[in-house]
Amino acid sequence: MSTTFAPLTNDTFLRACRRQATDYTPLWLMRQAGRYLPEYKATRAQAGSFMGLATNVDYATEVTLQPLERFPLDAAILFSDILTVPDAMGLGLTFAEGEGPRFAQSIRTEADVAQLAVPDMDKLRYVFDAVLMHRILAVNADAVAQYLNAQIDAGAQAVMVFDSWGGVLADGAFQEFSLAYTRRVLAQLKRTGVDGQDVPRIVFTKGGGIWLEDMKDIDCEVLGLDWTANLGKARAIVGGQVGGPGKALQGNIDPNVLFAPPAQIVTQVHAVLDSFGTPHTDRTTTGPTHIFNLGHGISQFTPPEHVAALVEAVHSHSRAQRQR
Amino acid sequence: MSTTFAPLTNDTFLRACRRQATDYTPLWLMRQAGRYLPEYKATRAQAGSFMGLATNVDYATEVTLQPLERFPLDAAILFSDILTVPDAMGLGLTFAEGEGPRFAQSIRTEADVAQLAVPDMDKLRYVFDAVLMHRILAVNADAVAQYLNAQIDAGAQAVMVFDSWGGVLADGAFQEFSLAYTRRVLAQLKRTGVDGQDVPRIVFTKGGGIWLEDMKDIDCEVLGLDWTANLGKARAIVGGQVGGPGKALQGNIDPNVLFAPPAQIVTQVHAVLDSFGTPHTDRTTTGPTHIFNLGHGISQFTPPEHVAALVEAVHSHSRAQRQR
Repeated sequence: MSTTFAPLTNDTFLRACRRQATDYTPLWLMRQAGRYLPEYKATRAQAGSFMGLATNVDYATEVTLQPLERFPLDAAILFSDILTVPDAMGLGLTFAEGEGPRFAQSIRTEADVAQLAVPDMDKLRYVFDAVLMHRILAVNADAVAQYLNAQIDAGAQAVMVFDSWGGVLADGAFQEFSLAYTRRVLAQLKRTGVDGQDVPRIVFTKGGGIWLEDMKDIDCEVLGLDWTANLGKARAIVGGQVGGPGKALQGNIDPNVLFAPPAQIVTQVHAVLDSFGTPHTDRTTTGPTHIFNLGHGISQFTPPEHVAALVEAVHSHSRAQRQR
Repeated sequence: MSTTFAPLTNDTFLRACRRQATDYTPLWLMRQAGRYLPEYKATRAQAGSFMGLATNVDYATEVTLQPLERFPLDAAILFSDILTVPDAMGLGLTFAEGEGPRFAQSIRTEADVAQLAVPDMDKLRYVFDAVLMHRILAVNADAVAQYLNAQIDAGAQAVMVFDSWGGVLADGAFQEFSLAYTRRVLAQLKRTGVDGQDVPRIVFTKGGGIWLEDMKDIDCEVLGLDWTANLGKARAIVGGQVGGPGKALQGNIDPNVLFAPPAQIVTQVHAVLDSFGTPHTDRTTTGPTHIFNLGHGISQFTPPEHVAALVEAVHSHSRAQRQR
């Protein structure tokens, strides 16, 4: 394969994903292209609808790049929506202004499950012997894997698997109904991008901190955590040693902190960075690294100038950490 | 003090709270007197309003005993509502049918905080130097402690401190804004009931399983856990050894399991009991014990016959565990 992409000017995020030393802690924000930005709202108004925005290359590119024009973030996140996958599976998605997503079809019976459009049904026949719920999850996992592989073929340099609701499951049910299918997605992902580089895989389960021991050995490079987790303890469990194996960590400030005055935001950013501690600084090998992020998506009501304060605090304090 | 209470006919729950061996695992259900029982709804209709029910001794006693008449539960839970405390603090509580609780007063300013009615304001003056939020929490903790002490003086044989929302706090914020005030409540509680016995104290934070190490040493006898926690792992951390110190554990089945068919409820009950493992059986000393409960309150839409299946499964399987 060949690539027409310009060379990367900032590889800090990808280096941290690979547990390589960086000059500062890279950051991006879950849902960083979104309604808290007036320029996003203007583009969405032009597009006419959310699906008009998500399915038009020019609009989607525009909103993908908007947060990077405003803040020195370390990654651009391909603009899309999780519900585009079930839409592609035949459920007919629309977004009503002020009301949120709606599907034309719903899944209530086994016959509905059988109707789900998947690219290669033959591969899936064997799971049809399992119970209804596992059937849906298997079909969904395979569709998610194909979708992420398509993104990798289109130039994505890292991918992330979210489970926003895994944390409400019971111990036991989480391992059976969430983690097993995260593993199923991971096992199917392409490992090399169109630039010839490996594609780091990030896994994030909101509320999953209690199952860190279960997630320690899954086949991915980065684990995301929400704000209930202590990054220092998580580093001890999954971060590994300098020169040894381990996972990079991503997270984990509470998005509600962005509603506090900037001075308080700075204090909380320092607390999160200090909780992880100084990442390793040895450029000759791999070791524990941290990618700063929110513990969940940014609220549409967040003042953009508060985001600027957060970004500045992450970059400056994480540089200072490395000088100690 | 003297007591006019009849002697206990079933001390299984209290024995388990004290880490004493029992013939089976005792159980009660959070919110066991509630809207899932038709007899509760009938009494509430007679009372005219929720506050009419909660403030009338005869009605409150009636609904307290209703679940025990229907199911062989191991504890009667004094019927009340958490919002009666802020009501007593002067906020004017009413319940609108189908709408939920409403307060006549709200707390928005420092002056509002100063207006909160607490029984002995002199004791609280020193906390008025702290920030607003800590002031509210201190006043609230002291009011909760006095309320629980009044329940102990009225004959309560065990008390429980709930933090239903502690699990949404960030690591660090939980310890500062929740756990510190749980400790403050615990420190003020009377240790002896009107029957001359010690009064076990149960602490439950929904979503608190991730902070078990932080809660290991708080001054209480029982820790409650929700369904995300693994009881076996929790037992290893806080349950202690036979003859040694430790805490009893309470929990932790997902209340949604009660919507499954009875056969599936039985399977899940077994999984929860087996997750804890067999409690200790040495009648000469203390050791690890388990009190079965839901991981949160029972839903108003739960079929009562499903509760019967759960209660039967807990008692029979936990007896079988002890025969192994």
